Amino acid sequence: MARSGTQDIATDSTGVSRAIADARSRSVARESLRVRYDAVRAHTQALCAPLETEDYVVSSMPDVSPTKWHLAHTSWFFETFILADHAPGYGSPNPRYAFLFNSYYVQAGERHCRAQRGLATRPTVQQVFAYRAHVDDAMRRLIDVVGDDPAHPAAPLIELGLQHEQQHQELLLTDIKHVFWTNPLRPTYEARNALQRAGASAAGAGAGSAGEASWIAGPEGVQWIGHAGTGFAFDNEGPRHRVYLEPFRIGARLVTNADYLEFVHDGGYGRAELWLSAGLATVKERHWEAPLYWERTDGGWTEFTLGGTRALSGDALNEPVCHVSYYEADAFARWAGARLPTEFEWEAAARDTSGMEDLYGEAWQWTQSAYVAYPNYRPTTGAIGEYNGKWMADQWVLRGSSLATAPTHARATYRNFFPSDARWQFTGIRLATGGAAAS
Amino acid sequence: MARSGTQDIATDSTGVSRAIADARSRSVARESLRVRYDAVRAHTQALCAPLETEDYVVSSMPDVSPTKWHLAHTSWFFETFILADHAPGYGSPNPRYAFLFNSYYVQAGERHCRAQRGLATRPTVQQVFAYRAHVDDAMRRLIDVVGDDPAHPAAPLIELGLQHEQQHQELLLTDIKHVFWTNPLRPTYEARNALQRAGASAAGAGAGSAGEASWIAGPEGVQWIGHAGTGFAFDNEGPRHRVYLEPFRIGARLVTNADYLEFVHDGGYGRAELWLSAGLATVKERHWEAPLYWERTDGGWTEFTLGGTRALSGDALNEPVCHVSYYEADAFARWAGARLPTEFEWEAAARDTSGMEDLYGEAWQWTQSAYVAYPNYRPTTGAIGEYNGKWMADQWVLRGSSLATAPTHARATYRNFFPSDARWQFTGIRLATGGAAAS
Amino acid sequence: MARSGTQDIATDSTGVSRAIADARSRSVARESLRVRYDAVRAHTQALCAPLETEDYVVSSMPDVSPTKWHLAHTSWFFETFILADHAPGYGSPNPRYAFLFNSYYVQAGERHCRAQRGLATRPTVQQVFAYRAHVDDAMRRLIDVVGDDPAHPAAPLIELGLQHEQQHQELLLTDIKHVFWTNPLRPTYEARNALQRAGASAAGAGAGSAGEASWIAGPEGVQWIGHAGTGFAFDNEGPRHRVYLEPFRIGARLVTNADYLEFVHDGGYGRAELWLSAGLATVKERHWEAPLYWERTDGGWTEFTLGGTRALSGDALNEPVCHVSYYEADAFARWAGARLPTEFEWEAAARDTSGMEDLYGEAWQWTQSAYVAYPNYRPTTGAIGEYNGKWMADQWVLRGSSLATAPTHARATYRNFFPSDARWQFTGIRLATGGAAAS
Amino acid sequence: MARSGTQDIATDSTGVSRAIADARSRSVARESLRVRYDAVRAHTQALCAPLETEDYVVSSMPDVSPTKWHLAHTSWFFETFILADHAPGYGSPNPRYAFLFNSYYVQAGERHCRAQRGLATRPTVQQVFAYRAHVDDAMRRLIDVVGDDPAHPAAPLIELGLQHEQQHQELLLTDIKHVFWTNPLRPTYEARNALQRAGASAAGAGAGSAGEASWIAGPEGVQWIGHAGTGFAFDNEGPRHRVYLEPFRIGARLVTNADYLEFVHDGGYGRAELWLSAGLATVKERHWEAPLYWERTDGGWTEFTLGGTRALSGDALNEPVCHVSYYEADAFARWAGARLPTEFEWEAAARDTSGMEDLYGEAWQWTQSAYVAYPNYRPTTGAIGEYNGKWMADQWVLRGSSLATAPTHARATYRNFFPSDARWQFTGIRLATGGAAAS
Repeated sequence: MARSGTQDIATDSTGVSRAIADARSRSVARESLRVRYDAVRAHTQALCAPLETEDYVVSSMPDVSPTKWHLAHTSWFFETFILADHAPGYGSPNPRYAFLFNSYYVQAGERHCRAQRGLATRPTVQQVFAYRAHVDDAMRRLIDVVGDDPAHPAAPLIELGLQHEQQHQELLLTDIKHVFWTNPLRPTYEARNALQRAGASAAGAGAGSAGEASWIAGPEGVQWIGHAGTGFAFDNEGPRHRVYLEPFRIGARLVTNADYLEFVHDGGYGRAELWLSAGLATVKERHWEAPLYWERTDGGWTEFTLGGTRALSGDALNEPVCHVSYYEADAFARWAGARLPTEFEWEAAARDTSGMEDLYGEAWQWTQSAYVAYPNYRPTTGAIGEYNGKWMADQWVLRGSSLATAPTHARATYRNFFPSDARWQFTGIRLATGGAAAS
Repeated sequence: MARSGTQDIATDSTGVSRAIADARSRSVARESLRVRYDAVRAHTQALCAPLETEDYVVSSMPDVSPTKWHLAHTSWFFETFILADHAPGYGSPNPRYAFLFNSYYVQAGERHCRAQRGLATRPTVQQVFAYRAHVDDAMRRLIDVVGDDPAHPAAPLIELGLQHEQQHQELLLTDIKHVFWTNPLRPTYEARNALQRAGASAAGAGAGSAGEASWIAGPEGVQWIGHAGTGFAFDNEGPRHRVYLEPFRIGARLVTNADYLEFVHDGGYGRAELWLSAGLATVKERHWEAPLYWERTDGGWTEFTLGGTRALSGDALNEPVCHVSYYEADAFARWAGARLPTEFEWEAAARDTSGMEDLYGEAWQWTQSAYVAYPNYRPTTGAIGEYNGKWMADQWVLRGSSLATAPTHARATYRNFFPSDARWQFTGIRLATGGAAAS
Repeated sequence: MARSGTQDIATDSTGVSRAIADARSRSVARESLRVRYDAVRAHTQALCAPLETEDYVVSSMPDVSPTKWHLAHTSWFFETFILADHAPGYGSPNPRYAFLFNSYYVQAGERHCRAQRGLATRPTVQQVFAYRAHVDDAMRRLIDVVGDDPAHPAAPLIELGLQHEQQHQELLLTDIKHVFWTNPLRPTYEARNALQRAGASAAGAGAGSAGEASWIAGPEGVQWIGHAGTGFAFDNEGPRHRVYLEPFRIGARLVTNADYLEFVHDGGYGRAELWLSAGLATVKERHWEAPLYWERTDGGWTEFTLGGTRALSGDALNEPVCHVSYYEADAFARWAGARLPTEFEWEAAARDTSGMEDLYGEAWQWTQSAYVAYPNYRPTTGAIGEYNGKWMADQWVLRGSSLATAPTHARATYRNFFPSDARWQFTGIRLATGGAAAS
Repeated sequence: MARSGTQDIATDSTGVSRAIADARSRSVARESLRVRYDAVRAHTQALCAPLETEDYVVSSMPDVSPTKWHLAHTSWFFETFILADHAPGYGSPNPRYAFLFNSYYVQAGERHCRAQRGLATRPTVQQVFAYRAHVDDAMRRLIDVVGDDPAHPAAPLIELGLQHEQQHQELLLTDIKHVFWTNPLRPTYEARNALQRAGASAAGAGAGSAGEASWIAGPEGVQWIGHAGTGFAFDNEGPRHRVYLEPFRIGARLVTNADYLEFVHDGGYGRAELWLSAGLATVKERHWEAPLYWERTDGGWTEFTLGGTRALSGDALNEPVCHVSYYEADAFARWAGARLPTEFEWEAAARDTSGMEDLYGEAWQWTQSAYVAYPNYRPTTGAIGEYNGKWMADQWVLRGSSLATAPTHARATYRNFFPSDARWQFTGIRLATGGAAAS
């Protein structure tokens, strides 16, 4: 999650085998590290099943990385941050891979220019899979040594590598979606459209127009924020600290396609008073008139999904709106007489089991909190410290998780982040408002 | 204060007649509105005294507006937001001025493209001064009607117009400084260098290296933030609300040129681990190796000022470092084992008469708080509502004031804002750190 | 004539005092060098009479230089190429002027970046005039020494300096026209519109539509091309050499506004088959739909001139179309079933006193000859050799002269040159066609 | 040959099976159309033999098209300009292919944006080969009808389609070379390096330094230029017409790597006086210091070829220099005290069997003739008329042919064309000079 050079984020699953993934995830706690390692690595490859060789190669815009780059980079991560230090005698199949597959870790050495990721036809897809197998062999030998001993110095790094790979699973999906959408032939990732929600939870109890959204009163006063306990969390989720929340209410459900369509039909994209200045400039310059992947046809609006193009009608209207930028989320909120929540409001409300629907598994939720450090935050030293800390400028925090996120990768303290104009992620909207009876 | 299209900010005085301005400001409270109006308007013109006709015309980069544009735009502001509604029969000397001198108020009509501000040779400087006189005449007649009655609907708008003009006084100075610096002949604004501080307060009691800076413990726990009382404040300084502050300490003084020079000599600009990712990219792309206006010569570093170029030695080393971007302020803080304060820490500490030096009148102080709305903030409706609200993305809050700010224009709740890479304003650094004995 | 960094071209007169200039030019041959020097230098300054101080400062696009830069650069030319070598003890009033006012002579030392010419407010206009006077004093002393002795080594350089200044007289006018047009207030250079032709020669004998243009048969077979004799010519007008001309016919008159309007009304700008590929791309990218300075209004087309905006009707229709690019000239010719002449056809026909109207004094005429060297061309050695030779790529030759060209600066062998998309010069169209009864 | 959007040029053979191609070409005249069709189409596919699936997909810079695009576009050409009109009932396998594989024929309908050619992963390589087979089936049925009857209206179009495909054979090779060079792994197209010349003809009779190059006196006086006879020629090779050639001499051989290395070692890239102004700007902006594909290593210069990287030493020094732009060819010629020939000098000398070596099969030879129409040139009407005519601006003519050109695709009247800065084609240098004893 982050600006160009960053998207090393996100998470797992979905799509090809959501049901299996769900079942698997429930037993994570009981799994041995080896089982977990194998499951995560195998899942990444399972996500590639619908792809042709050609699909692995290209980058359709600067933010998008080729599928084969994701496959190789996640392996490079294990090689560089774990095997190099903890697997004596480990050798890379090709020393140039360290150059090709380092994303942004300046302290880990020179890197291939991001802009050229989509131009390298070699190594071939087959060679990249061989690279993965090579790394897997070494990792499995190491895991045999580490066992399930959390005190082993490699143990937390292996967990970090798996979390990192889950982030790239989500990116792999958002990226291939964009690659397919860029192609005039509009290929389909999977016919079954497994990445669209099965149920229609967003519809809630017949949630009507945006104006009728029901609100939930959030906790006010001094609140603890940030990760606590022994489970895994990224460094940016701490240190745990207090904030003061003025009275507020938060949306019980996500904004739906139907809600957003009202905004579009009301001329929302053309009404200057609704937009941030930079947002208005972006709308005009890029000719935005709807979320990314929406298209206006003679027969009404359609939406491009990983399962192909579908009409924005019927059940589709009750699903959460997705692929909106911060600028659009902010303008919609202003149109609706509301605002976006802060990340602290979101976390405090989410933690309180407050009855909010769709916290996870639908769409990341923009907050009006800029992505900055918590008090007394210090990143790890060395290259691994570049993971989160160096992105703390000009980005917003998103909370929750999306339909492309691994279920085991979502939690109330998770801080995803993207810049104001990012739309190719599965990003949606939850509203908030002041404490009074307002709006 | 804001991103391209914005700089409608800042403040007065300094330079030409600092002493007079100081004396004048102390009596502001007692002044009638008419006296205050005349003083502010006259001061703007006094700032132009050292300029040649040619100097009024150009824009040396997209953020910089020509001097004659500042002179006209501030008049247009009175014309558009006050005279149009409250001065029956008022007519503009040229209806095209409304097009030429609207900065960014979308709801106030079409505007001249910002990029072309520096290309319009007409109206001439003389015509712009005539425009000012025309507006002044009408304003004085209106002020006679309004009297000192604060209940008159125009009264708060007139005060806003004066505050607005004070902001442009500061911008006028930062902009002409950049224009002069761009010219290979390096003209001098005023030989006396009145805009450099007379005393050397920053030097404090022989403030040594950054490491030795003394810290002041800030107030912790629940704190009230935001403007209260009857004095003037911009809408973005409210609503007043509570925040929770974890224990922290804040620098007793600003970072000096001497401190910053240590960072430069220590290779700070080349050490990737000190920088935000976007900061590092900016440093490389723009070949930054010191603050704006510093130049490396055979005889050591020099600094370009409104009074000309001077060596960075002797007393100059004890002055606060200025013209650094957020990226540089953040990297310096990391190098010094500290961080930037949040805007809330700054305000709470400043309000507590905590012994901090140079709160005002030296250099704006970057905070690590993104410029976003306070809880329950709502901008005014109509075009005037665009003043502050629509800039709330991708900018940082700066607190305090600078040597170019009118003394009557500084207060503890004031929120200035600029994007991460802005350097042409008088922007400096105050450090903060965690609550322990730290750093 | 040339690509960005070049326009060091063109010539004199017109406008302010056309009648005087004409009379003066007829006696040029008899004039002493001193009289001629004074006349050329004075004429440059006379062209500035209608300008305000502010008008001298800006550059409205990369091709345009500020008026005060033209005034200074032509003086720098005398200083650098003549006074430095032939006036012992000459000193520049400011050594930095050599940096500021060198246009593109790489071998003459470092130069100010062209893109920043319009940002330098100093030296002031008054200082630039003082610089001219300083150079004039030294030149006059030198001319006293040189006398009228053409064998003196400085004599040909002085003549070159005057020709160079005449070129800048034309550029000064084309540039200030663009500066005024860029300004929404649309200032007027001179009310009398002296730069519009007095007569209506282009109308010829009631020249009707483009299809009815009358043709003149050009000379065929082996023809001598290039300058001969003792009069002044630029190096690129030689060496004299032979070319073979297949039978051709050339337009008796220039294409008029009326002709061109037919093309516009016939949808010419939207018909892909009429355009060069790069031309079509340019038309779309820049939204061209008529010549530069034409504007579509509710009341029909208007044209911006140095005398202000006027309707394209009545006599204006019979004047030669002006301010068209090569792309437009070429597309118009294709639409008219004709083509542009080669520079050799033009020169051979012009020399034959063939009855062509408007050879000079109306609009430069695009040819389909690329600007390359004549056989055995060798530029002068040293910096002065950069005058013409280094521009011989990606430009087209234009022949004739325009209403902004000094009458003493036009001849049949003159080779002006500009790139395909240039429109701010006074550039028009003369057609040609094959030898048969064609079109 | 042409500016971005154009490269639809070039020719065949080389590499994989040069010997076979040579033998085949000698019998072309006797072949039936069907045999020739099959040979050309098969040869295109033979060129792809060394490629992996991934290699077909990407575009490494705007001028480069993906291999699979070349394969499809050449088939689209037959489909659009021949089958659509002459094969009743023909249907495309996918109507969207007409959009995807139209290069630049505006009159043939909407096209895929060139910039996105390298982003479309579908159709897959396998689907593209199926498309070729589909078109081949229909073409063979049509050829059965046409027979060898040159009077059949489809006959000349089929020949054009084959010539067009030969042009793309050369482009396919230049493009894949660039793709491989862009990849840090530097893959090899074929280990045998068949595209490097077998012999060392350029070395000639021990050709020494550039200064010692031997010259051949060209024919002077009136010369006929352009295609004559019944063989195939592109429309831009006519109409046949006369030109007058002043005395000149032309280089007996091409400039070699050894010659060019002298220029490099002599500081040629840094000597402003040798360069065109635009050339110097390009050299600085792109940091050129040698031909494309040359690299400076600790052990001396190397050159990247389709056969891999090799040292520039030994026999390699005697080969013609290649991959130089017009700017470099022009600067080299000036350094050598010579110039580039005009296209007319080249053609007249080449036709005279003048003893010039390496006319064909080594490297295209830049001329100082801009690519413009011959007198009375008229392109075909309709979309096919866009083939050559609309590129006649801002490009130079190159003569001869390269090692990547099909032997049957070279002739003395052939006019290849590229802009001044193009380097990825196999472009080299032949010098010329005036008629005297010169240089």
